[in-house]
Amino acid sequence: MKLATLRSEHPDGRLVVVSRDLATMADATAIAANLRTAVEAWDDVAPALQALHTELHAGRHAQPFDPALCAAPLPRAPQWCDGSAFLNHGRLMEKAFDIEPAPDAQTVPLMYQGASDDFLGPQADVLLPSEADGIDFEGEFGAIVGPVPMAATPAQALGAVRLLVQINDWSLRALGPREMRSGFGFLQAKPSSSFAPIALTPDELGEAWRDGRVHLRLQVRWNGEHFGAPHGGEMDFGFGELIAHAARTRRLSAGTVIGSGTVSNTDRAAGSACIAERRVLEILEHGAPRTAFMRFGDSVQMQAQCERTGDTPFGRIAQRVLQWQP
Amino acid sequence: MKLATLRSEHPDGRLVVVSRDLATMADATAIAANLRTAVEAWDDVAPALQALHTELHAGRHAQPFDPALCAAPLPRAPQWCDGSAFLNHGRLMEKAFDIEPAPDAQTVPLMYQGASDDFLGPQADVLLPSEADGIDFEGEFGAIVGPVPMAATPAQALGAVRLLVQINDWSLRALGPREMRSGFGFLQAKPSSSFAPIALTPDELGEAWRDGRVHLRLQVRWNGEHFGAPHGGEMDFGFGELIAHAARTRRLSAGTVIGSGTVSNTDRAAGSACIAERRVLEILEHGAPRTAFMRFGDSVQMQAQCERTGDTPFGRIAQRVLQWQP
Repeated sequence: MKLATLRSEHPDGRLVVVSRDLATMADATAIAANLRTAVEAWDDVAPALQALHTELHAGRHAQPFDPALCAAPLPRAPQWCDGSAFLNHGRLMEKAFDIEPAPDAQTVPLMYQGASDDFLGPQADVLLPSEADGIDFEGEFGAIVGPVPMAATPAQALGAVRLLVQINDWSLRALGPREMRSGFGFLQAKPSSSFAPIALTPDELGEAWRDGRVHLRLQVRWNGEHFGAPHGGEMDFGFGELIAHAARTRRLSAGTVIGSGTVSNTDRAAGSACIAERRVLEILEHGAPRTAFMRFGDSVQMQAQCERTGDTPFGRIAQRVLQWQP
Repeated sequence: MKLATLRSEHPDGRLVVVSRDLATMADATAIAANLRTAVEAWDDVAPALQALHTELHAGRHAQPFDPALCAAPLPRAPQWCDGSAFLNHGRLMEKAFDIEPAPDAQTVPLMYQGASDDFLGPQADVLLPSEADGIDFEGEFGAIVGPVPMAATPAQALGAVRLLVQINDWSLRALGPREMRSGFGFLQAKPSSSFAPIALTPDELGEAWRDGRVHLRLQVRWNGEHFGAPHGGEMDFGFGELIAHAARTRRLSAGTVIGSGTVSNTDRAAGSACIAERRVLEILEHGAPRTAFMRFGDSVQMQAQCERTGDTPFGRIAQRVLQWQP
């Protein structure tokens, strides 16, 4: 089934189920007030949500679905841990900046802890303080989990996946290197992330969900122009491995979001899901980057698309970056 | 006023106000169900909580207060950003491990993003997977803020402090260096943090709260023996600077917890608030560390104490470390 969160006076928004074609929705607040409470009581509420989803497809309770009214599926998640599971991306970065790769990069995923208290909706303006910070998008996929015990195996961890989501993990590239050198990791370099409107149960993807990976291309457009469409199947670590990595020394609360990191393919014809990677390719080819980071007023669109049917199961992120004003 | 959270069936627990001497408490759930909702609606609920606190001291509504029944003041906080504001600690680490200090270490605080979905109460057993991970405590202070706008100044940020807390930021030292080298920062190296029972408004500390710093010694005992009592006044960055650092590129939700980092003094007679620092002093003195990290079954106690009155305004953290069992 497909779920979404409508903005409301409550910071967690209101839960709706959404039809497969994203045309209609049905209010689900009689079952769970919001997605956070739904994920916390998943075994109790999922059957009723599923039944409502079935009724919606039979034409009952249907209202028009407008993604412009959506918040992030979880506007406030208990936790956000973002991996870097497409090693091609890291390898390019290392090559361009002459960084020694970590000796265990093939076996231990990179992952940072991000902020999860203020996730942005699919069409929310992204307010940032300065173009000089090197504003960049990062298209990726994510998994929302149920409770995960400490030291869960990758198989156990994969079994805890409740919903899949599509994310734009905003990055401020000028701030990243200092925070990486400090050893304390990203903080200012990672402002609030944005989410496509739909959170879906993995079965909705059919064949495109296998091996703990989303086997779809993520189409990225910047200011209306094609930027890249790398394929999610190329993850070097699946979501099972990523979730288990996060749970190595702690239990994870229901509603924790685990990210794949920016989608990146060795096939360069696929293009990139972030500007930094294109710049790195330019450095490798021309000795210097040619593409600048984003300017205020720029827009970005991202949607995962099924090549066979043309479906965009998560809906679309379509945002503008604007200057934050006090 | 002083507030605490009693464990209950609800993951956010139940709010109580606590007397200054920590002897009695009064149920505050008629005003706010839990501290999280109280902090989110602070201007509306603080006067009523204050009135209840006054009534409690007049002997009304009083029940005995038992810190053993407490959860962390915010068992689930929206965000946890931990600074490293006592530069003495970082300098010792750099000296012992021959690390080049960051060129801007005096002007830009170090801060990492931690997990905030599962904070532990003052007497909760700390379950961890392996002694080989290098189990260490870190005694520190923290501030719980109201909403902080993006790009707040340190003065604005300091004005957003609602409550002060005392924290044991558990660390797994064997996992830290790899995560620091990766540039992505701490994740597995920072399991759930623990909190002393009391969250207090800054006025409760009187003179001991000034310049955005908690001017109290933090007494640390390990397995019942004195380990250190460094003074919180020696912070090189105050909480105003730390909060402003966290808010540089994002707004902070009400209930965000900002940590000082382990309390550390240049006066070595004060002792340390974490084992790692003692080991570093041993390396500098003897060429090798002599103190091992914690073993399962070990206990740690931490309390901030007023040297003049002997008061322990936050109550006490008193925990054992045990092996996590599936």
